[in-house]
Amino acid sequence: MKNRAVIALLAMVAAGGAAGGLAVRAGHAEEPAAAVYVTKIPHGYRDWKLVSVAREEGELDDIRAILGNDRAVKAFRDGKIPFPDGAIIARIAWAYDTSAVNNKSFGRQQSFVAGAPKNGVQFMVRDSKKYAATGGWGYAQFDDGVPADDSVMRTCFPCHQAIKDRDYVFTHYAR
Amino acid sequence: MKNRAVIALLAMVAAGGAAGGLAVRAGHAEEPAAAVYVTKIPHGYRDWKLVSVAREEGELDDIRAILGNDRAVKAFRDGKIPFPDGAIIARIAWAYDTSAVNNKSFGRQQSFVAGAPKNGVQFMVRDSKKYAATGGWGYAQFDDGVPADDSVMRTCFPCHQAIKDRDYVFTHYAR
Repeated sequence: MKNRAVIALLAMVAAGGAAGGLAVRAGHAEEPAAAVYVTKIPHGYRDWKLVSVAREEGELDDIRAILGNDRAVKAFRDGKIPFPDGAIIARIAWAYDTSAVNNKSFGRQQSFVAGAPKNGVQFMVRDSKKYAATGGWGYAQFDDGVPADDSVMRTCFPCHQAIKDRDYVFTHYAR
Repeated sequence: MKNRAVIALLAMVAAGGAAGGLAVRAGHAEEPAAAVYVTKIPHGYRDWKLVSVAREEGELDDIRAILGNDRAVKAFRDGKIPFPDGAIIARIAWAYDTSAVNNKSFGRQQSFVAGAPKNGVQFMVRDSKKYAATGGWGYAQFDDGVPADDSVMRTCFPCHQAIKDRDYVFTHYAR
């Protein structure tokens, strides 16, 4: 989220959209941090169902999985937005490693697998009242279990705002 | 599995390993098909826990997820082989699609997401007695829900044999 949002923010500035972006950031500064950002890792998220997978090139350079708790996955599968309160979406990412063993079996360089954890673990937690200031979603990022700085978290919402019509969620459910 | 195994088999032939590969295939031909290949899609596999993710370039050109039932995931997490009887590993794959929406937010071309289902759904089902002829694993591939031809399935084991010391499983658990 850090790189992603920073890049998006830079892109907004470059595109002359700084006013909107900074207005949002200023708005956040007036909110109590505890009410906007999630500071505890949701329990048992690694056991949640798979929503989809993705690959990010560029600075992020990772391969990732999006998981959801039962409430989130049901909403994804039903194609219903807004997501219900209690829905949580998790994003895990790993280094994009070449696999020598797989490539040997394939007889060519073509296989990339998940390596070490990378770019932290991120969450979107739905609570339409608690997180009303950020579209009903609380954002979280944990690097080695440690919550990211408030300054990092303030960059999440401006990026997700671009897809307000999808209830701020980038990921589509992979059938 | 089809492309993968065919490529591996071609690679074996090219490397002078045809005798070994063909011997295995001939061995399979003597086994009753029902005892070696899995012909029913394991129930509820899309709800299983995530083992890892991968990207295959080349002919496969997909992004994929490996899921496991509880018995398989426990073995992966414990790092214990051989996998216990009853363990099932699933491989789902999707088209490797660029995401215009994500790229717009990032401000550059970098984001690839799961598109339409691709390359079928595959399974490895552990039953050390029933599938003794193929290392204790029964193999399966379903394309639009239809089991792949026997001729396709015969190519699975020769490829997985290369990693016998990992109990024939290519995927590592992604922490």
